[in-house]
Amino acid sequence: MYAALDIGGTKIAGALVDEEGRVVGRAQRPTPAKGSAGVLMGAVGSVLDELARDPGWGVIRGLGIASAGPVDTVAGAVSPVNIPAWRGFPLVDEVRAHPMLFAGIEPVLIGDAVAMTAAEHWLGAARGFDDALCMVVSTGVGGGLVLDGRLHPGPSGNAGHIGHISVDLDGAACPCGARGCVEGMASGTAIARRALASGWVPPAGEPATAATVAQDARRGDALALAAFDRAAKALAAAIAATGSLVEIGVAVIGGGVAQAGDLLFTPLRRHLDSYATLDFVRGLEVRPAALAQDAGLVGAAAAARLLADVPGPHRRLDPA
Amino acid sequence: MYAALDIGGTKIAGALVDEEGRVVGRAQRPTPAKGSAGVLMGAVGSVLDELARDPGWGVIRGLGIASAGPVDTVAGAVSPVNIPAWRGFPLVDEVRAHPMLFAGIEPVLIGDAVAMTAAEHWLGAARGFDDALCMVVSTGVGGGLVLDGRLHPGPSGNAGHIGHISVDLDGAACPCGARGCVEGMASGTAIARRALASGWVPPAGEPATAATVAQDARRGDALALAAFDRAAKALAAAIAATGSLVEIGVAVIGGGVAQAGDLLFTPLRRHLDSYATLDFVRGLEVRPAALAQDAGLVGAAAAARLLADVPGPHRRLDPA
Repeated sequence: MYAALDIGGTKIAGALVDEEGRVVGRAQRPTPAKGSAGVLMGAVGSVLDELARDPGWGVIRGLGIASAGPVDTVAGAVSPVNIPAWRGFPLVDEVRAHPMLFAGIEPVLIGDAVAMTAAEHWLGAARGFDDALCMVVSTGVGGGLVLDGRLHPGPSGNAGHIGHISVDLDGAACPCGARGCVEGMASGTAIARRALASGWVPPAGEPATAATVAQDARRGDALALAAFDRAAKALAAAIAATGSLVEIGVAVIGGGVAQAGDLLFTPLRRHLDSYATLDFVRGLEVRPAALAQDAGLVGAAAAARLLADVPGPHRRLDPA
Repeated sequence: MYAALDIGGTKIAGALVDEEGRVVGRAQRPTPAKGSAGVLMGAVGSVLDELARDPGWGVIRGLGIASAGPVDTVAGAVSPVNIPAWRGFPLVDEVRAHPMLFAGIEPVLIGDAVAMTAAEHWLGAARGFDDALCMVVSTGVGGGLVLDGRLHPGPSGNAGHIGHISVDLDGAACPCGARGCVEGMASGTAIARRALASGWVPPAGEPATAATVAQDARRGDALALAAFDRAAKALAAAIAATGSLVEIGVAVIGGGVAQAGDLLFTPLRRHLDSYATLDFVRGLEVRPAALAQDAGLVGAAAAARLLADVPGPHRRLDPA
């Protein structure tokens, strides 16, 4: 059994996850996103308290923490973009100090997109692939990599951060400081923005979101379709770039925008044919994520599981 | 001692390389690039024959082959772009069958840019880095990766192929079929083409090449400087993308275009500040390659050395 925490801008979720990846116990609190560092940690503690009342808690072999990024897995610290009071917050130390945590259980921290990747590789759409990119396309765009059969979080735990690679070097300025980032072209926000800029008008009384753009695209609205096509093109270029750089067999896409289904995946596969042209890149598969909701929790458990038998404080997700 | 072959479009080089990476014996033939598959293999055999007359041949522990790509390390085959008669040519089988090769010496094939990467990591500018991108910027643009302290050739041996990632998804069509590839913006050919297109005229009687553009750029010619700036920008976007995807501490650049020195590296570092903006990407170093000429041979030897103690025909460069 593994304990798992998934810390995001809207909720702090906890779970007990068994050796087969089944969630067998849960606890959840809304994230006090505007709260102080201490109030936030209080909510985490409360989730842990509730989990600890589950009989399964007594047999946990590890505890994994998936957090909105950026994370610093060396320092065990998190700086989630949407949780302003946590900047370089020593989450691993704080969780380790929780009174219900047994001595010897060393919390393992990973970014939420890396967690999603671990989960999809363990039990989802990337299962059986030694080399995979998994992405979350939502209000932001994140990702993670599996290389040579192993999770590749990178030295600081942020590898796979495909949302901020530039596929349009002269393109629009991104809040990160660069130009033409994938996130600025393919996130849900970007899709709605592009649709509006092209003259699309959301359905009466509804907001301009990727979901309402998708609604109109399904009805055949050309502007709505074009907004999805542009996002798909940016994702295709980025996925092909990843294939050229590290060789991958599959790209798995989850997150709210992926819920649009064929509206996204059909143009994405078509554009991928244009960008993934080299022999060793051509033919890489694109699949929707399989785990949806629980990917963060299951991925956190997967990370804890990967490290459960590795001793010492400086453990790496690649036990080699 | 290791034997090494470096097979390119202009020459077939061979060497004996000792445990410290010193080249202690050499042989070389011009590549009969327009010749038949057999004539080409004859030249390789002749290089091996000459190497085998060196007393050091008697103590080789392995043989590495660096080849112009694409390569297929699973099949042991090569299809060098500039050697048309070799398409899926079973180079590993052919070299293994050479009469002078001792039983038990299993040739190890890697792409030339991956070889350069192995060499720079072993003895050159990437030494001491666990995570590095090494690039060759010349008439083409290639590259290789070191991740977690190990060479990452990828399943087919072509990982690190940064020349064909798109940094300009609506950009110029590339012969590979994609658009806005780094090679089409940063190769020596691209630099000369861009300078000419902007109105630059080569010095009287001289050809339009990256070297003559560099000459004029050194004299302060604005069009020549702009051509290098554009190449530097494309390289910066690609290096930053690599940093975001896999986390690297250094990008090492060799090849003819890197000979331009500060003309390339100064704008490259400036543009990198614009694209490498995330905490875990910012601050990655850019360095000129240290090994130059012998990088292919030393890298081939490095690959043979990495595998010298790994048994079996399905050996991988990552012995884990």
